[in-house]
Amino acid sequence: MELDTLWNTAANFADSHQQVVPLTVFVAVLCFCLILGHLLEENRWVNESITALIIGLTTGTIILLISKGKSSHILRFDEEIFFIYLLPPIIFNAGFQAKKKQFFHNFFPIMLFGVVGVFISSSIVTAGSWLIFPKFGFVGLTPRDFLAIGTIFSSTDTVCTLQVLNQNDTPLLYSLVFGEGVVNDATSVVLFNAIQKLDVNRIDGWKAAGVFVDFLYLFSTSTALGIASGLVTAYMLKGLYFGRHSSIREIALMVLMAYLSYMLAELFDLSGILTVFFSGIFMSHYAWHNVTDSSRVTTKHVFAMMSFIAETFIFLYVGMDALDIEKWKMSKLSLWNAIGIYCSVMFLILLGRAAFVFPLSAISNCMDRTSTQSTPISFKHQVVIWWAGLMRGAVSIALAFKQFTHYGVPVDPVNATMVTTTAIVVVFSTLVFGFLTKPLIHYLLPQGGTNTLDRDPTITKEDMRLPLLSFEESASTNLSRAKDGLTRLMERPVYTIHSFWRRFDDAYMRPTFGGPRSDQSSP
Amino acid sequence: MELDTLWNTAANFADSHQQVVPLTVFVAVLCFCLILGHLLEENRWVNESITALIIGLTTGTIILLISKGKSSHILRFDEEIFFIYLLPPIIFNAGFQAKKKQFFHNFFPIMLFGVVGVFISSSIVTAGSWLIFPKFGFVGLTPRDFLAIGTIFSSTDTVCTLQVLNQNDTPLLYSLVFGEGVVNDATSVVLFNAIQKLDVNRIDGWKAAGVFVDFLYLFSTSTALGIASGLVTAYMLKGLYFGRHSSIREIALMVLMAYLSYMLAELFDLSGILTVFFSGIFMSHYAWHNVTDSSRVTTKHVFAMMSFIAETFIFLYVGMDALDIEKWKMSKLSLWNAIGIYCSVMFLILLGRAAFVFPLSAISNCMDRTSTQSTPISFKHQVVIWWAGLMRGAVSIALAFKQFTHYGVPVDPVNATMVTTTAIVVVFSTLVFGFLTKPLIHYLLPQGGTNTLDRDPTITKEDMRLPLLSFEESASTNLSRAKDGLTRLMERPVYTIHSFWRRFDDAYMRPTFGGPRSDQSSP
Repeated sequence: MELDTLWNTAANFADSHQQVVPLTVFVAVLCFCLILGHLLEENRWVNESITALIIGLTTGTIILLISKGKSSHILRFDEEIFFIYLLPPIIFNAGFQAKKKQFFHNFFPIMLFGVVGVFISSSIVTAGSWLIFPKFGFVGLTPRDFLAIGTIFSSTDTVCTLQVLNQNDTPLLYSLVFGEGVVNDATSVVLFNAIQKLDVNRIDGWKAAGVFVDFLYLFSTSTALGIASGLVTAYMLKGLYFGRHSSIREIALMVLMAYLSYMLAELFDLSGILTVFFSGIFMSHYAWHNVTDSSRVTTKHVFAMMSFIAETFIFLYVGMDALDIEKWKMSKLSLWNAIGIYCSVMFLILLGRAAFVFPLSAISNCMDRTSTQSTPISFKHQVVIWWAGLMRGAVSIALAFKQFTHYGVPVDPVNATMVTTTAIVVVFSTLVFGFLTKPLIHYLLPQGGTNTLDRDPTITKEDMRLPLLSFEESASTNLSRAKDGLTRLMERPVYTIHSFWRRFDDAYMRPTFGGPRSDQSSP
Repeated sequence: MELDTLWNTAANFADSHQQVVPLTVFVAVLCFCLILGHLLEENRWVNESITALIIGLTTGTIILLISKGKSSHILRFDEEIFFIYLLPPIIFNAGFQAKKKQFFHNFFPIMLFGVVGVFISSSIVTAGSWLIFPKFGFVGLTPRDFLAIGTIFSSTDTVCTLQVLNQNDTPLLYSLVFGEGVVNDATSVVLFNAIQKLDVNRIDGWKAAGVFVDFLYLFSTSTALGIASGLVTAYMLKGLYFGRHSSIREIALMVLMAYLSYMLAELFDLSGILTVFFSGIFMSHYAWHNVTDSSRVTTKHVFAMMSFIAETFIFLYVGMDALDIEKWKMSKLSLWNAIGIYCSVMFLILLGRAAFVFPLSAISNCMDRTSTQSTPISFKHQVVIWWAGLMRGAVSIALAFKQFTHYGVPVDPVNATMVTTTAIVVVFSTLVFGFLTKPLIHYLLPQGGTNTLDRDPTITKEDMRLPLLSFEESASTNLSRAKDGLTRLMERPVYTIHSFWRRFDDAYMRPTFGGPRSDQSSP
């Protein structure tokens, strides 16, 4: 129940400067990242993640030289810090800023890619690594390790592609890539946790079905908790009318409730990532409408800023960690075998993703044809979706640390190899695939890859980074935008669950939890 | 250089739930505090600090009952956490939201109270406790401990009084109490650090002078670092024009630079508290004018929110800690002797404050009479200033933990007694003096203690909590407000350093670092 023993023991090892020096250096490097990222913003080939990674690698090299090869770190990664402090703001912000209308409109394909896709991809990566790794002399992994490897290399990082895609020219594509990215992260973590509970020594059909039932249970309870926390916050903000006295309290309450929902989910062994995502969606859909104007501006920017800092922090760390000399020394593989491992993992990632994007797109198109309501996903779009999910990022690293290290330190050569492999895959995929994304999209979608700024100076990049909170939030802005970009979607009436939901929303949810009535002119 | 050993050792003691459970409970209690504080807002006798303290005491009691008298804690206080994470936002926000015009206008009396006052008060408390403590059978404190006790019980917590005072009716009083509160905190911490370096075994006149020189050195270098960091941030924001791409980056840069200045000061053994205070003042004076409108709204609210959460956190903790059964058992004093100690400390605080407020007010009035420019401080105002500084808060607790505990745990009975004494004094002064503040001010200043809301519904409490960032920030709002409330001050021309500074500011500083020209209609 207490942290006493933790701190007491830590006391013997830390004097004040041990905490101050690394924090100072890290914050200074973060500031530098921010400024460089800003200066490189014009050049959209290089995004924030790539900048942070490169600066991390550079800083790592400098520290390596200063410490004469002893260390490339400032801070040692503790995956607890990641899961308790860095991941929640990123995921909450994803939910909070999500274009909910688009997200729910494309709910079916997003879920298909984000849930079924992860199952397919991790099966392929698991099976492939099981077959290939021993050929490079890499043995010693347990069955659970192989299952974990599957989920680790199935969680995508789509930030890079989203910065190149244009949500006004290709709304469907943008919404699919964004939605899949979020659901995919959540699914990977939930699946990873389900695997942790599995008794891998006696796997049979029932056990496999057990994983799936476990997964469904985690998925539904976590979602329910997130929705509940969002609604409770909305109800409190509406009922108590905090803005009357102080908008600071409103903002504090939203931040704390979001964090509380994440921590509660973790406490009950649910998936905090899913909980906080749905908490974000429901807070922006209801709670956000019950606060004062300045609180709206503030929350929108604060959540984006926290997410931004957390993400930069992680990529910076990954860059430094990739050079960690201790892990390299600990890993016993020869150079060529190690390169073989990296290449085979990259190949499995490419294969695993191709194996679900193209078939599932076909299924999605097929389903859509029967209901005649959505634009089909063209082959070129499928290629972009495939490519967009090749980058591996923060979640992969965090899961790898959780599986293969003990508080940031791998305990044996096999684990050390897996941690370095993950770091290399993240660095390589972010740098190389990231750099190639823009040319690829330019080649495949000449109209969709063009920078909007070149043609329409009224739309700032800010708008693209921060998709509008919800369709209803500002009917005028959104209607004009909707007429521009979403013409095809808007002209067609929506007969799906979505429309039932909106009617229910208007009739019962909004009067209770807050939010304006939706514009009746748009069906 | 690394936190490795820290985390590795911690690893043996902490499994994930050990971190999750206390954090969850603490965040839930924080939310509860927020809601209750909101509900009690109408009743201005009970402020946020009092609410948090009472909830902390209640939670402590509940935990004590649940754990059957074993513990009253959720988290163990580590004074490093306080100094690295909780104090910087509170002090930065104080600087950022300070009414700079008023602050610099009353610079002389504020400095007199905040710097000279702390020296007088801590001398009296040190001497008094040296004489009185042994009479209650409390022996074993070193000379350094007595000097530390002086500074610990000289740092005030003026939040409570500020919530009752009205800055429109009594601008001079409000500015004096606010300004003194901030400078006083900084002085106490700087003096405390200067005492830590002192070789107390051979004290003579030279050594005492050495403390003063040390103090001046710390004060000036810390201030210079804070000013430099504020100006660098302003210059970067102006030169690079971050808002062009993303206002999120602007906000992140301000937050990170403020934090960096604090950490740098700590790194160089300066006073982070002074640095971050001046960084806040200069950021709001220059940098704040170089960002986009939404960033302005956001930063203003974010800093206030972080400060608010940190403060609530601390009072909540103090409430729980006051019931810590282990410290009570460790302290070997009899009940009556312990009560004697508490009463004598309270008496020394009352005496020490009276000993500088009344004489220094007389000096300040005397100086003012020669330059004929300010309203003299009336006797009733002097009583309010005296009373406003009687509450002891977060800084006292943090300094007491630094001096008398080893990472939150006192090592011997004498230290345990001092920690419990500090907790009792903080709880008692906040609750009893806090409750009595409103009646006292009502009695002494019938016009100044009235709630503005009753008379002028256009001024919200928000305005009182968040004083406008600077006079120049919004000339129209401020001018109207200035004409209402500050009539006396505005009608009289300012011939002090302040006017020279403003001319210099207009001619050189603002063109370089940003900010509008000051309104020429107000001299």
